[in-house]
Amino acid sequence: MDWTTIDACRTSTELPRPVEIRGWIRTRRDSKGGFSFLEVNDGTSLGNLQVVAPAELENYAEEIQKLTAGCSVVVQGELVESPAKGQATELHANSVRVIGRCDGETYPLQKKRHSFEKLREWSHLRARTNTLGAVMRVRNRISQSIHRFFDDEGFNYLHTPIITASDCEGAGEMFRVTTLNLEKLAGSNRPFDTKQDFFQKPTHLTVSGQLEAETYATALSRVYTFGPTFRAENSNTSRHLAEFWMVEPEAAFYDLHDNMQLAERFLKRVFSDCLSHCGEDMEFFNERIEKGKIDQLKSVIEKPFEHMTYTDAVERLLACDEKFEYPVEWGTDLQAEHERYLTSVVGGPVILTDYPSSIKPFYMRVSDDGKTVAAMDVLVPGVGEIIGGSQREERLDVLQRRMAEGGLDESEYWWYVDLRRYGTVPHAGFGLGLERAVQYVTGMANIRDVIPFPRTPGNAEF
Amino acid sequence: MDWTTIDACRTSTELPRPVEIRGWIRTRRDSKGGFSFLEVNDGTSLGNLQVVAPAELENYAEEIQKLTAGCSVVVQGELVESPAKGQATELHANSVRVIGRCDGETYPLQKKRHSFEKLREWSHLRARTNTLGAVMRVRNRISQSIHRFFDDEGFNYLHTPIITASDCEGAGEMFRVTTLNLEKLAGSNRPFDTKQDFFQKPTHLTVSGQLEAETYATALSRVYTFGPTFRAENSNTSRHLAEFWMVEPEAAFYDLHDNMQLAERFLKRVFSDCLSHCGEDMEFFNERIEKGKIDQLKSVIEKPFEHMTYTDAVERLLACDEKFEYPVEWGTDLQAEHERYLTSVVGGPVILTDYPSSIKPFYMRVSDDGKTVAAMDVLVPGVGEIIGGSQREERLDVLQRRMAEGGLDESEYWWYVDLRRYGTVPHAGFGLGLERAVQYVTGMANIRDVIPFPRTPGNAEF
Repeated sequence: MDWTTIDACRTSTELPRPVEIRGWIRTRRDSKGGFSFLEVNDGTSLGNLQVVAPAELENYAEEIQKLTAGCSVVVQGELVESPAKGQATELHANSVRVIGRCDGETYPLQKKRHSFEKLREWSHLRARTNTLGAVMRVRNRISQSIHRFFDDEGFNYLHTPIITASDCEGAGEMFRVTTLNLEKLAGSNRPFDTKQDFFQKPTHLTVSGQLEAETYATALSRVYTFGPTFRAENSNTSRHLAEFWMVEPEAAFYDLHDNMQLAERFLKRVFSDCLSHCGEDMEFFNERIEKGKIDQLKSVIEKPFEHMTYTDAVERLLACDEKFEYPVEWGTDLQAEHERYLTSVVGGPVILTDYPSSIKPFYMRVSDDGKTVAAMDVLVPGVGEIIGGSQREERLDVLQRRMAEGGLDESEYWWYVDLRRYGTVPHAGFGLGLERAVQYVTGMANIRDVIPFPRTPGNAEF
Repeated sequence: MDWTTIDACRTSTELPRPVEIRGWIRTRRDSKGGFSFLEVNDGTSLGNLQVVAPAELENYAEEIQKLTAGCSVVVQGELVESPAKGQATELHANSVRVIGRCDGETYPLQKKRHSFEKLREWSHLRARTNTLGAVMRVRNRISQSIHRFFDDEGFNYLHTPIITASDCEGAGEMFRVTTLNLEKLAGSNRPFDTKQDFFQKPTHLTVSGQLEAETYATALSRVYTFGPTFRAENSNTSRHLAEFWMVEPEAAFYDLHDNMQLAERFLKRVFSDCLSHCGEDMEFFNERIEKGKIDQLKSVIEKPFEHMTYTDAVERLLACDEKFEYPVEWGTDLQAEHERYLTSVVGGPVILTDYPSSIKPFYMRVSDDGKTVAAMDVLVPGVGEIIGGSQREERLDVLQRRMAEGGLDESEYWWYVDLRRYGTVPHAGFGLGLERAVQYVTGMANIRDVIPFPRTPGNAEF
C-alpha cells in the first residue's frame, strides 16, 4: 500500500510532500479561478481533506467537473499547508482518477439533511454520514479500550456460548434456535419431538454469559466476555434492541467492594480513551448532539463515584418533592424516573448497592441481614443503568435454597452448582451493555443509531 | 485488592517480601520434617507456586493436612528464593486459610490423567487442568493480538449482525431463529405464517459478516469483524463446530496483493505475540502436544509466505508421485489431502490464489482470463486452510451477471448491489477461523478442545 489516509494527511506536519489519497467525494465546488475544490473523505476522520484540482488536469471538464457526492476517487498531488481557515493542510492535485461514479439522481445521501430515523432505512450507507461515521469510530474506540483495560488487569477474554440450553436469569424472553423446518412442522400433525432437532433438546440464544464465565473464573481467576446477547422482547423503544453486545467480567476472590472499584476504573478508562483518541469526533458530539458532553465526561473521570445503598436511595426518593409516576416503596424495583432523579441530585454516576433479595436473581450473594443481596448497579445521567453486577452466592446451601425458592430445577444447573461443591470461592462480576455505553459517550438518543445493523421487532433487513 | 497473582509471585525478583496469594490446591505432600508442601495454582500461569506450610500453623492438623486437589485457599507468608530445582521462588506460609473444600471422593479432576474426550464432559471444570488452562490463555492471547493488530493497522472493529435475513455464501446449512412456539406449531395444522414471527420474516444465525462488513468498508475504509458464526452441518469431526469465532477484515482500495500482505503480516503478528507472551504455555505445547511447534512457528515468522496459483498447484499435484484418494483435476476443489501435500512440499504456509470461478462464490472478483477469480486461501501444515479470502467484485454488471448465474435473487441483496452503484471501489478481505488458529498455535488435535463450550450435533450442555 502506498497511499495515505486522510486522517494522516490532515494532521501531517511533514509538509510539503507528495501523497496519494483514496476516498469518496463529499462536495465539489468549482471556482471561477480555473480550479475546483473537492472535499474528500475516507472515513478515517470526521473532517474531509480539501483537494484543489486545477483546470489543467486532462480529465477536468470530462470527469472532475461532473463529480458528485459519493463518487470514489484516487488523487495524487502535493500535500501543503493550507492558507484557508479551519484546515491545516490541503492537497494540490496532479491527477484525479475517478474510480466509481455515483448517480446523483438516486443516491440517498444527497444534499439535504436526513433524520436519523430515515437513515436507518439505509443502514448500508449511513456510516458515510458525519454523525454515524463518528458514532462507529467511537464505538470502535470503546471496544478497543474494553479489551485493553481487561488485558492490562489480567483478565482472559472468554467466548461463552451463544447457543445455550440454559437460561441465565430465568427471566427475559429468549429466541429459539432450531434446524427443524417450521413450514413443514406447521403442516404436520405429528407430535413435536425435540430429539429431532440439531442439539436434541430445546436451545436458545444466550441472554448472558455470566454463569459460564463463573466456571472459568474458578479456573483462570479473572475472565471477561464480550459478545452478542439477545432478548426476544417486543419492545419498540429507543432503549431496547433484540440483539446487543455485552461485556461481562467475572473475578474469583473479588467481593462487592473490589467489583465496584473495578467498574469505576473500567468506565473511567473507557471515557478517557474516547477523549484522548477521538478528539474530533467528541468535539462533534459536544457541539451537535449533546452540549457539554466533554466537560461531563471529564468531571466523571476526575471524581470518585458516589455510592448509595438501595435503602438510602428509597429514603431520599420518599423524602424529595418530586412527583413520580410510579410509587416508591422498599422492596420494589426502581424505575427509570427514580434513577434519573438520583443521578441528577448526585450530579454524576452513582453506584447503588444492597438491593432487596426479592427483586434480584438467585445467584446474587445474600447479605448477613438476610433481606438484601450484594448487588450493585451503576447509574449514569441520561442513560440510567449502564452496569449491573453483584457478588455471587458462593455458599452451596444458600444457593440451593435460593434456587428452590425461585422454582429453579437444580438438576438443570448441576454444573453451576458444582462450582460451590469443588473449591468454592467468593467471586463477583458485572455486565455492561456496550450500546448504552456508546449512547452515554456520544449523547445519541436512540440505541438503534449506535449499532451498525439494529435488530428490533419486525426489523432484520440487511 | 491486596493479593498477588501466582504468575507474579513465580517471576518476582523483589525477594524476600510478604505476599498473599489466592488459589486452588493442585497437590499436597506432607514431609516428615514437620511441614507440608502445597502446590497452588490460580490460573494466571501454567506452573504452580510451592507453598511451604509448617506444622506450627494452628490449623495444620485440622485443616492443612486434609487439603486435597481442588480446595481453595488464601495463603499469607514470605515469598523467598527457592533452593529447589525448577522453581525460582517459593512461599513460606504464616497462615493458610481454607476457603472452600473439595470432596476428593466425587471431584472429577482427581489423581489420574483423563482423556481430552472425558474432559469434555466436564467443560465447566476442565480449564483447571494444565492443558486446557494453557489452551485458554493462548486463545486469549491470540484474541488480544487480533484486536491490537487491526487497531494498529487502522481497522475499525465492527459488529455485524448475528441474526440475519441474508445468507452470505448461498451455501452452508443455517440455524433458524424464531420466537414461535415449536411445540404448539407442530400440533396446530394451520398454514405457517412467517409474519407471526418476531422479525416478520425467516431469520437465521449468520454464517459470515462479510457482506455487511463490505458496506462499512465503503464508509470507514478499513473494518474487521470478530464474532461468532454458525453452521448447522451434521459433521461429527475433529475439525468442525456448529458455533465458532471468525475474524473478517475488509478494506477499501485493497487488491488481492494488499490482501495477501495483510494476511501474512497478521498471522506473523499473532504467532509472535503467542511466543513472546505465552512462553511457558508454548513450552508445554512444544513438549507435550506437538514436538517442534516453537521452531515451526519461529520459522513461519521469519520466512516470506510462498505464493502459488491454483493452476500451478494442480500441475504439481498431477506431476507428483503421491497416491490421493480424490482425483485432481483443474476446476474441482482441492481436498484436505491435496492441501496437506502442498504445505508439506513447501515446508510451511502457502497462499494459493486464482481459483476457478466455478468453485467460488459470486462476490469474488472475476479475473481478466474470465475463468478464475481473485481468491486466496492460506494453508498451514497440519491444519490446512486457516484463511480464505478474495478481492471482491466491484463492477456492477459483472456482479449482476454472477448473481444471475448463481441463481441468486438480486432483490434480496439490493443493499449489497447498491455499493457498486454508489461510488464503487476495489476492495478485498478475508476470514480467519479463530479455532483453527488456536489449533495451529497449540497443536491441539481436536477443535472441541480449543473453545470453552463446544457446540456440535447433539451437544449443547452448559
